[in-house]
Amino acid sequence: MRPQIVLFGDSITEQSFRRGGWGAALADAYSRKADVLNRGYGGYTTRLGFFLLHHLFPLECTNPPVATTIFFGANDAALLGRNSERQHVPVEEYKENLRRMVHHLKKCSPTMLIVLITPPPVDEEGRLEYARSVYGENAVKLAERTNEMAGVYAKQCVELARELGLPSIDLWSKMQETEEWRKKFLSDGLHLTEEGNAVVHQEVIRVFNEASFCASAMPYDFPHHSEIDDWKDPSKAFLQFS
Amino acid sequence: MRPQIVLFGDSITEQSFRRGGWGAALADAYSRKADVLNRGYGGYTTRLGFFLLHHLFPLECTNPPVATTIFFGANDAALLGRNSERQHVPVEEYKENLRRMVHHLKKCSPTMLIVLITPPPVDEEGRLEYARSVYGENAVKLAERTNEMAGVYAKQCVELARELGLPSIDLWSKMQETEEWRKKFLSDGLHLTEEGNAVVHQEVIRVFNEASFCASAMPYDFPHHSEIDDWKDPSKAFLQFS
Repeated sequence: MRPQIVLFGDSITEQSFRRGGWGAALADAYSRKADVLNRGYGGYTTRLGFFLLHHLFPLECTNPPVATTIFFGANDAALLGRNSERQHVPVEEYKENLRRMVHHLKKCSPTMLIVLITPPPVDEEGRLEYARSVYGENAVKLAERTNEMAGVYAKQCVELARELGLPSIDLWSKMQETEEWRKKFLSDGLHLTEEGNAVVHQEVIRVFNEASFCASAMPYDFPHHSEIDDWKDPSKAFLQFS
Repeated sequence: MRPQIVLFGDSITEQSFRRGGWGAALADAYSRKADVLNRGYGGYTTRLGFFLLHHLFPLECTNPPVATTIFFGANDAALLGRNSERQHVPVEEYKENLRRMVHHLKKCSPTMLIVLITPPPVDEEGRLEYARSVYGENAVKLAERTNEMAGVYAKQCVELARELGLPSIDLWSKMQETEEWRKKFLSDGLHLTEEGNAVVHQEVIRVFNEASFCASAMPYDFPHHSEIDDWKDPSKAFLQFS
């Protein structure tokens, strides 16, 4: 019955309902208006995510999401020859996978609001610090991701959105506008702090509002309590729903 | 496709996806296992909530929730002759409304896990302080709710759960086990602080686990990234879903 907003992506989406998370904040912003469903898959790349499309967004669905965020790239951009190389997806394929995801969603619902989100920037030193905190002396000496490479993927993501006429959030650039972005927005050089989550939340709200998908303009599913006149016999207030 | 957990209640449920909220924490705990849907309605009583039952839980639904929390009473217990008297629902009716809600949900799905949650305790001085902070000299001088009355409703809620053989969470008693409950768990004498939210979260998780509805025992909907053997051609890992 309620419209659905689906968050499709990797661990940064999967973790978005943790304390201060952008997914939970979105669910709160659309409270009583739309449901926010978390379809984040830690460790996944666009190559893996592609296999989920038909399951998460079946073409025969009678009630497709009204809005979907697609938020991959942090894993795709893992470097060849480094510790996470198995996750590496070439940037051309990343872009193509995103394109196929969008095509699928558009087939699912031509009116669905689709928002592409770039990977966040990477704090290489933060990644190495994190590795040392977990593995001690056995930690890798070379970060498995670089900020420069994440930027290459981010650029293609924004470029694809432009090609397809979709809104996008250039998180990679946006976060780096703030001088202290490394520690302020990233907890381990890659995943988001609460303040990093707040940036994603603000940006998603901004893009949703610009696309006229604004929570404040959407009706409540049932009367606000201030609209109930007769609390002894409130049936009249609910007549229109029966 | 994913099992659904529905949180049905008043503002304490509606606000449960705010920072540190128990609803968001539950969604995170069941991440990739179940969806948590917020059906909280600020200001609502069991008398109002009753009108939503057929809409939120239609009997003909082919995919009813696997678990539902029913969390009313904070408004029902508003005192007659005080500022929020229109919300007052006599305790006998409160209990009867809860009973009818449970019957409806059981008709919807005989296997649904239904958990009754009592209203939290009330810090009367905290309510008055809050009123003064909002209305200054025009603030009411008598709290619209008392802790004693909330306790009367809580007792009937627990009693009903016992009669129906359902699990319940006696939040009213649980919170008062902690000496500093007034300021520690309540932000305005009635609604929950982050620490108050954490109590609800822990209690819901405890009851869910006791009912063998345990996130860690539920399968992931799709392979965990550590189970992907061939990242170049991951199709084999998804064969069972095609």
